[in-house]
Amino acid sequence: MECDVKPVRLAILGLGTVGGGALKLLQENAAEIKRRTGREIQITHVGTRRSRPDLELEGIQQSDDLMHIVRQPDVDVVVEVMGGIHPAYEVIMEAIKHGKQVVTANKALLAEHGNELFKAAEDNAVQVAYEAAVAGGIPIIKVIREGLAANRIEWLAGIINGTGNFILTEMRDKGRAFTDVLKEAQELGYAEADPTFDVEGIDAAHKLTILASCAFGIPLQFDKVYTEGISKITAQDVKYAEELGFRIKHLGIARRVENGIELRVHPTLIPEEELIANVNGVKNAVLVQAHAVGPTLYYGAGAGAGPTASAVVADIVDIVRDISYTEDGAGTIPQLAFEALTDVPILKREEMTTGYYLRVDAEDQTGVLADITTILSRAGISIDAIMQQSRLKDLIPIVILTDPVVESKMDEALAKIQALPAIHGEIVRIRLESLDS
Amino acid sequence: MECDVKPVRLAILGLGTVGGGALKLLQENAAEIKRRTGREIQITHVGTRRSRPDLELEGIQQSDDLMHIVRQPDVDVVVEVMGGIHPAYEVIMEAIKHGKQVVTANKALLAEHGNELFKAAEDNAVQVAYEAAVAGGIPIIKVIREGLAANRIEWLAGIINGTGNFILTEMRDKGRAFTDVLKEAQELGYAEADPTFDVEGIDAAHKLTILASCAFGIPLQFDKVYTEGISKITAQDVKYAEELGFRIKHLGIARRVENGIELRVHPTLIPEEELIANVNGVKNAVLVQAHAVGPTLYYGAGAGAGPTASAVVADIVDIVRDISYTEDGAGTIPQLAFEALTDVPILKREEMTTGYYLRVDAEDQTGVLADITTILSRAGISIDAIMQQSRLKDLIPIVILTDPVVESKMDEALAKIQALPAIHGEIVRIRLESLDS
Repeated sequence: MECDVKPVRLAILGLGTVGGGALKLLQENAAEIKRRTGREIQITHVGTRRSRPDLELEGIQQSDDLMHIVRQPDVDVVVEVMGGIHPAYEVIMEAIKHGKQVVTANKALLAEHGNELFKAAEDNAVQVAYEAAVAGGIPIIKVIREGLAANRIEWLAGIINGTGNFILTEMRDKGRAFTDVLKEAQELGYAEADPTFDVEGIDAAHKLTILASCAFGIPLQFDKVYTEGISKITAQDVKYAEELGFRIKHLGIARRVENGIELRVHPTLIPEEELIANVNGVKNAVLVQAHAVGPTLYYGAGAGAGPTASAVVADIVDIVRDISYTEDGAGTIPQLAFEALTDVPILKREEMTTGYYLRVDAEDQTGVLADITTILSRAGISIDAIMQQSRLKDLIPIVILTDPVVESKMDEALAKIQALPAIHGEIVRIRLESLDS
Repeated sequence: MECDVKPVRLAILGLGTVGGGALKLLQENAAEIKRRTGREIQITHVGTRRSRPDLELEGIQQSDDLMHIVRQPDVDVVVEVMGGIHPAYEVIMEAIKHGKQVVTANKALLAEHGNELFKAAEDNAVQVAYEAAVAGGIPIIKVIREGLAANRIEWLAGIINGTGNFILTEMRDKGRAFTDVLKEAQELGYAEADPTFDVEGIDAAHKLTILASCAFGIPLQFDKVYTEGISKITAQDVKYAEELGFRIKHLGIARRVENGIELRVHPTLIPEEELIANVNGVKNAVLVQAHAVGPTLYYGAGAGAGPTASAVVADIVDIVRDISYTEDGAGTIPQLAFEALTDVPILKREEMTTGYYLRVDAEDQTGVLADITTILSRAGISIDAIMQQSRLKDLIPIVILTDPVVESKMDEALAKIQALPAIHGEIVRIRLESLDS
């Protein structure tokens, strides 16, 4: 077949860490990639202002006019790895309108504007591939869209921000404070100068939005993700959790429940014997609970030039196959895993159900324990464990683990406990998931 | 497109645990599968002698004449889940000759006759899909063939036999003996009456054969896998390994080295902090080291009706997409991940390189430790750790961990140590892998 011998031509937009990594990977592994796909991949354009003398750019046209590049006839696939919402959005839209296939690693763009982009792609019979947007080099999008296609996915829980996991790992391993470890993470280059995006869970919420759409076939709804960061987690609570057999991880959780779908990112106590509790440092992992296969877990590097480039190039390889073997290259798999998206309500925080770790710092008075347990009991909240810790500065920290409860109930009960005269400071509440299948 | 609205018609051969599971999964999840693929899947035939009143078989033709079934015009895809080499081989060959797509969970058949089957499939422009043949519900074949397509895979190490992992987990957790746990595994239905296949590593070697071909693009070469079982592992060695910070796992390892490829299944000491060391019970996991993405790990159920059916149906979904969107349904991905297989030599055991755990039971004599270490040192074998254990029945167990060494060298050194007059019984040698990237 004649079409199969022509090379597939790429434009790489952005030559930073990921773009440079993808370019190098395509060049170095060209022979093995051709052995897999039967076609040569040729980079015809790079869109960047940047000078990268360390890269082999001979024969590749370089320009910073991205709109011009994506209109060129010698471009079959546009690889957008520049990041940011604008002008990435406009450039990808232009590429789609010109019938180009798109590969992107841009989680923020997809989570916030993916519905429009996928719609435009469908209208123009092209694909927007995005394996690199979630969990770096772990092929989690492929796994959910294809590998688990037979399953009704019940829930998934992911460590999908390496910075946050590095910080929590260090806090646990060395008993260090959040601010102290964050500073180190910034020095190591794991965290940005403004760490909000990572430590407050926004990055994880972007990725969770995409994962949930693939898992449940719902539109992307970033604005409905309940998001809570890890900046208030203390070494004290990490230690108490540990004593009770739990680790604190910053999880992105998407769960299908009777009345809708929960989308939430928050620090979470999980049993230490769970495999995902043992995912340490900057690594990522996603645990998927599906009705036929049961729990499966996917682990690897969530960021970095090599891992992200690995995912970008895997998408390119898939697209090369689609271009080569299908009529129109529109892809054989629906963008968000399902042909028709369903509109299931996303629950508000008050409607979500989770277990809880509570820490109440109380004066050493007779009756305070009875007061607390009575309030919880009257609210219908079951206590799974209760532990009085050693006195700290005249106060007794009381740690309570509860069974799953609707958050609105917990809000009410905690307001009452907070109002007890013997209670000092704000009650610490951290969600707890048993991750049972 | 007219072809897209016709249902895809299946024949399921075998209605045991897996066949029944696949049938039920296709029926129960029909709506969600149609939402994913846009096509209905219709089971037209089941090939079995068995009566399964628990299944919904109305409107499905049942027969035990498998050769007849696979020739029927109302069959697009043949799902072979009966197991065994014969008549599965003949039936699949007949199906292929009649232009049917094939999905199989038959690891033994593929490992031993896959080269012929894949060749026949290629000649007849159909696919033989086999996700369910390795690691049950974990989509590891898809991950290696597609998800990691950009990578040069360096090595992989898998816990790919649940029975063996259950036994080793129990031995470690409870200090129990191999035979004792095996008996329990048989009672629980995890192990067969004749457990050879599982505990001697044959099943794992079948799966490793398939994984290695996908990872390296080499022909299936089951006969060249070095295979060693776990039946000689003692609670004593499990305990000593633990004291040194290691767990013993039965791993299938495929590694690309300078002069060829190592294919080996054997008990292996691995560092306890590795995620794969914490995969317990009947679960499976595969750790893949690839040049761009680094280490990634895939974990889940390796057997059972639901997990295996999940993989079988995922293959069916992929085939439905290929039939619907490509010209000939031959598939867009080479069967063994690469278009052209390369013929890299598979190393003999003597040529392989691994670290070692050695246990030498010696009389309590002056000089015996010096004799042993001198022999190792003269053979150029570096000692990583050495530990004298408490006396047992007048003998001192000496435990030694070595750095990686070519096995032929180790053979020679051990023959010399074995010949020392102070050494009693056979030296225990268990391989050790640091799993460093």
